[in-house]
Amino acid sequence: MSKKISESAVRRLSLYLRTLEELDRAGHEAVSSEQLAARSATTAAQVRKDLSVFGSFGKRGFGYTVEELGRALRGILGLTQPWRVALIGAGRIGSALFEYTGFARRGFQIVAVFDSDPAKIGRKWGDSIIHDVAKLERVVSDKDIQIAILAVPVEAVQGVMDQASRAGVRGVLNFAPVRLKVPEGVTVKDVNLVIDLESLTFALSQGF
Amino acid sequence: MSKKISESAVRRLSLYLRTLEELDRAGHEAVSSEQLAARSATTAAQVRKDLSVFGSFGKRGFGYTVEELGRALRGILGLTQPWRVALIGAGRIGSALFEYTGFARRGFQIVAVFDSDPAKIGRKWGDSIIHDVAKLERVVSDKDIQIAILAVPVEAVQGVMDQASRAGVRGVLNFAPVRLKVPEGVTVKDVNLVIDLESLTFALSQGF
Repeated sequence: MSKKISESAVRRLSLYLRTLEELDRAGHEAVSSEQLAARSATTAAQVRKDLSVFGSFGKRGFGYTVEELGRALRGILGLTQPWRVALIGAGRIGSALFEYTGFARRGFQIVAVFDSDPAKIGRKWGDSIIHDVAKLERVVSDKDIQIAILAVPVEAVQGVMDQASRAGVRGVLNFAPVRLKVPEGVTVKDVNLVIDLESLTFALSQGF
Repeated sequence: MSKKISESAVRRLSLYLRTLEELDRAGHEAVSSEQLAARSATTAAQVRKDLSVFGSFGKRGFGYTVEELGRALRGILGLTQPWRVALIGAGRIGSALFEYTGFARRGFQIVAVFDSDPAKIGRKWGDSIIHDVAKLERVVSDKDIQIAILAVPVEAVQGVMDQASRAGVRGVLNFAPVRLKVPEGVTVKDVNLVIDLESLTFALSQGF
């Protein structure tokens, strides 16, 4: 793949898609880049630039077709297929994530949960049984899992990451506050709420 | 404040600070921009550019003084004072956040918890009592709270946001998947795990 696109551009595509889906539910058929921009806290020029990377979508004087652009963005973002997800770590964060309905609505199915705590292994969560993390490679391969959510302590996370990538996981959402080493072909997104708070306090202290 | 700096640049400052703190704990006194870059997944030129916005830190041939640059970054990021935080929403996400020790380690103190559920109001969480969200404005003002974490349902979040900003909250970490309208002078960071997963599936589908 030759197109280079920044992380923030990809996040904007996700925001455009949300706007399009809202407009679609509200019965709108067309939308301008100005309207998409206003609802995504960006500029019309940026919207046009972001979309032009992937093709030619709008029509001059009409704008974009809500349904068509929505379909295109779902394709670009890889959302036309369901994704099979492993949740690793059945602690407090893992439990909050497991209950979160937003994932399933977008086609992210948590099909297996893992922990290393003998007191948790074998327990039922919804329709799932908590597996021993030692069986990660077999279960990931059996269930054809592509994505793993890592909600494990800092000291365990690199080991779990290594197991997951050996098992064929290609995408990882990591909640541990540490930068993971990953083999080529594996993508990691870090969720770090303290860093989110730090960008708030940066703004507050700099007087934005 | 005249310096314009992107959100991703601020996140890099947070990563540099983490690296500096690790190096400090390991007894290092100096670090090069190359070393900072390698541990933060960026380039030495980017490190120098990010830091030059805020002053002149390194010495040619020596690099940066670990302790001095760490102190400067804590100042820039607003981390030299403790921050008083309200947690609004005592559900599953709120509970996971309340138990999360990473906030306190960085000086973010959750000094009040709120909910609207009569079954939860008055309960004790740690040393805190869960307050009625109707009392938000009074408690925020009494306890001199500057930051609010919003872990409430989509349909409630804009109302809570409005109350919080009337009460003087200036920074908000929002977990509801909706873009909030805020008055000037209030900064919002959205945490949206589905969008994080979408940037993973984008990478997986585009064959990165």
